[in-house]
Amino acid sequence: MTLPITFLSDFGRADEFVGVVHGVLAKLAPEARVIDLTHEIPHGSIRSAALALTRSIQYLPEGVLLAVVDPGVGTERRALAAETAWGFFVGPDNGVLSPAVAMVGGAFKIVSIENPEARIPSPGQTFHGRDVFGPAAALLSTGEASIEDLGPALDPNTVMPLLLPLPEPVGSGMAGEVWWVDQFGNCQTNIDPEALAEFGIRPGSAVVVKVGGNTFEVDWVTAYGDVEEGDPLLHVDSSGLVALAVRSGSAASMFNLADGTAVTLAGPAARTTTP
Amino acid sequence: MTLPITFLSDFGRADEFVGVVHGVLAKLAPEARVIDLTHEIPHGSIRSAALALTRSIQYLPEGVLLAVVDPGVGTERRALAAETAWGFFVGPDNGVLSPAVAMVGGAFKIVSIENPEARIPSPGQTFHGRDVFGPAAALLSTGEASIEDLGPALDPNTVMPLLLPLPEPVGSGMAGEVWWVDQFGNCQTNIDPEALAEFGIRPGSAVVVKVGGNTFEVDWVTAYGDVEEGDPLLHVDSSGLVALAVRSGSAASMFNLADGTAVTLAGPAARTTTP
Amino acid sequence: MTLPITFLSDFGRADEFVGVVHGVLAKLAPEARVIDLTHEIPHGSIRSAALALTRSIQYLPEGVLLAVVDPGVGTERRALAAETAWGFFVGPDNGVLSPAVAMVGGAFKIVSIENPEARIPSPGQTFHGRDVFGPAAALLSTGEASIEDLGPALDPNTVMPLLLPLPEPVGSGMAGEVWWVDQFGNCQTNIDPEALAEFGIRPGSAVVVKVGGNTFEVDWVTAYGDVEEGDPLLHVDSSGLVALAVRSGSAASMFNLADGTAVTLAGPAARTTTP
Repeated sequence: MTLPITFLSDFGRADEFVGVVHGVLAKLAPEARVIDLTHEIPHGSIRSAALALTRSIQYLPEGVLLAVVDPGVGTERRALAAETAWGFFVGPDNGVLSPAVAMVGGAFKIVSIENPEARIPSPGQTFHGRDVFGPAAALLSTGEASIEDLGPALDPNTVMPLLLPLPEPVGSGMAGEVWWVDQFGNCQTNIDPEALAEFGIRPGSAVVVKVGGNTFEVDWVTAYGDVEEGDPLLHVDSSGLVALAVRSGSAASMFNLADGTAVTLAGPAARTTTP
Repeated sequence: MTLPITFLSDFGRADEFVGVVHGVLAKLAPEARVIDLTHEIPHGSIRSAALALTRSIQYLPEGVLLAVVDPGVGTERRALAAETAWGFFVGPDNGVLSPAVAMVGGAFKIVSIENPEARIPSPGQTFHGRDVFGPAAALLSTGEASIEDLGPALDPNTVMPLLLPLPEPVGSGMAGEVWWVDQFGNCQTNIDPEALAEFGIRPGSAVVVKVGGNTFEVDWVTAYGDVEEGDPLLHVDSSGLVALAVRSGSAASMFNLADGTAVTLAGPAARTTTP
Repeated sequence: MTLPITFLSDFGRADEFVGVVHGVLAKLAPEARVIDLTHEIPHGSIRSAALALTRSIQYLPEGVLLAVVDPGVGTERRALAAETAWGFFVGPDNGVLSPAVAMVGGAFKIVSIENPEARIPSPGQTFHGRDVFGPAAALLSTGEASIEDLGPALDPNTVMPLLLPLPEPVGSGMAGEVWWVDQFGNCQTNIDPEALAEFGIRPGSAVVVKVGGNTFEVDWVTAYGDVEEGDPLLHVDSSGLVALAVRSGSAASMFNLADGTAVTLAGPAARTTTP
């Protein structure tokens, strides 16, 4: 049985890179379904790619995850394949796979893809999506190679982790940051609704949002329809995290937010005090 | 037998939204062929999406049409599934499906997708492509659910229509508007060649084009090759509508046209008069 | 057996053009795997498309290559189908297919797609991807049509060639040009490493790069990791050609290079002389 392959990269679509990897997959795994998760991860942004994978993994068909965001191609960084309860993960040893692998319970086995028979010989050292990662993903998909066939086992402790910043309690709320600004301008924070609940901040609360030197009060609602067009809102987004949005508008523009911007969410003093 | 699914949205490609919906479809309908019609409908443009569907539907394999352009997500708008002679249509009740459903002869049955078993439980109310529409499309594709299984039947008269402006006769021609500007700058109008024929305007005619306060005379030809490089032309386009184009250039730039711009096409007084 | 179809165009993704061609392929060849090579070839750039095909062809599954970059649609240019050792090539007679067909050893047979039964009748003359090339590719994929069924055989000498500029020896090196600037800003030249070897220029050499009136000295290395972040390098790229790159940066920006820019690579006088 051929496993489905989900493919993410920062290759963009203007060049033929994505198509060539699809070609390699089709040659080596003609029956494999291939899903393009996205190929427009900002160039070299390991963090953006890792977060996209953590948001997505539970919705993807179990099989092979091929992630090629690889600013270190052509350096000593290793090429990894990991076996997990979900299936196989293939990508560079730069942290891009680590959070998603952790989410599915960690890896049983991790190898360094070094077996020349699992690679496509190439004149250059720049397109490992085509020459190293793609072939490995295809071979795991069809079962033509076991993970051990790809190369030597690695000590999991030597694999590059990815440190994702966690929010911290501060005063009457949580200090965190923006983890994702989507194309609609919605801004996902790294703050969990449960963390705010400990401060009595819940859906229905007015929340004090601190960004840069500015402070705003925004209602925490359950859906866009609870506010007027053009008004801001806080809500639990489709990943289960607290997000700033604007109905039919862009929270990124309204609050001047970008990936990584520090944001504090707190209860308004007046309302949380019972005088 | 699994039905093919054609998927259109305004999700863009920069985020993983499209890929996650593909993941859901692959999990629930592993054998279904999925065609991406386009995902770059301007954000929230129900009209653009509806027109793209009317232009495309006859070229798509009969099966399931999944259209997610949904500015009202998180409001009271309903989620629809419709059964037609062509197959199934799935999308929000905001008019996006209405013209294409009408083109294939209307719906035998329309339901509101409310059955919790047909949805993916979600922390948020923002990603119905993943949680509501995608699962419904997959279940209809595999036949695991009938349309009745998805939720209660709706009175078709309560379904949101989409009013598309029709051209009107004016003087010696037709007053209409631009319905579509494609990436090449070609401008499709809502004017049918037959409507112009009633004014004696036909391929071979010189046509008076009125846009804003300006008037141009443009030849109606049968193909780009009938004019010189850089010259404008009127022709019947691939949808069968009268369109303004420029050979190896952009009519949108030359005539300052955008989606919705009013355009009048008329016969030149001098030539249509027989003195 | 259904052959896989690889599809390249300059349609972009904003409109539904690509999706509609996929619809046609799915209707006529429901079992065919379809690979999108890229659809973001610069509008009308036959050269860019032809070079992308030559870089890719060896990585694509043998079958049908459908290439629609067609600035001459609606003129007298012919629609071609060619049979080769690799498989079938389908596209306009404007040179876009010629270099890739040559790379796979040339065509056994070339026909002009004229049989009305192999076309989809259309009101317009502008969307041959949908009406002419797509149907031909699908019919060849399924074997429902042989190449002879599509139309009359052509004299190969009448098919439009594509002249790709070759580099020339000049002084102590080679004068060539940029053939491709990818999204990362990497600049592929048309210069082969063997041509430079004849001047004693090899990996490890310092190379004199002349662009416009400027001269730079750049190290020829084997991988990005051989230079510091932000530093330029020459290397043999994934196509086997000499390319200018910048580690974690853009050579196009650093050296002001674009597709077609003249570049000379030469040995530095001081180092190649043995005093």
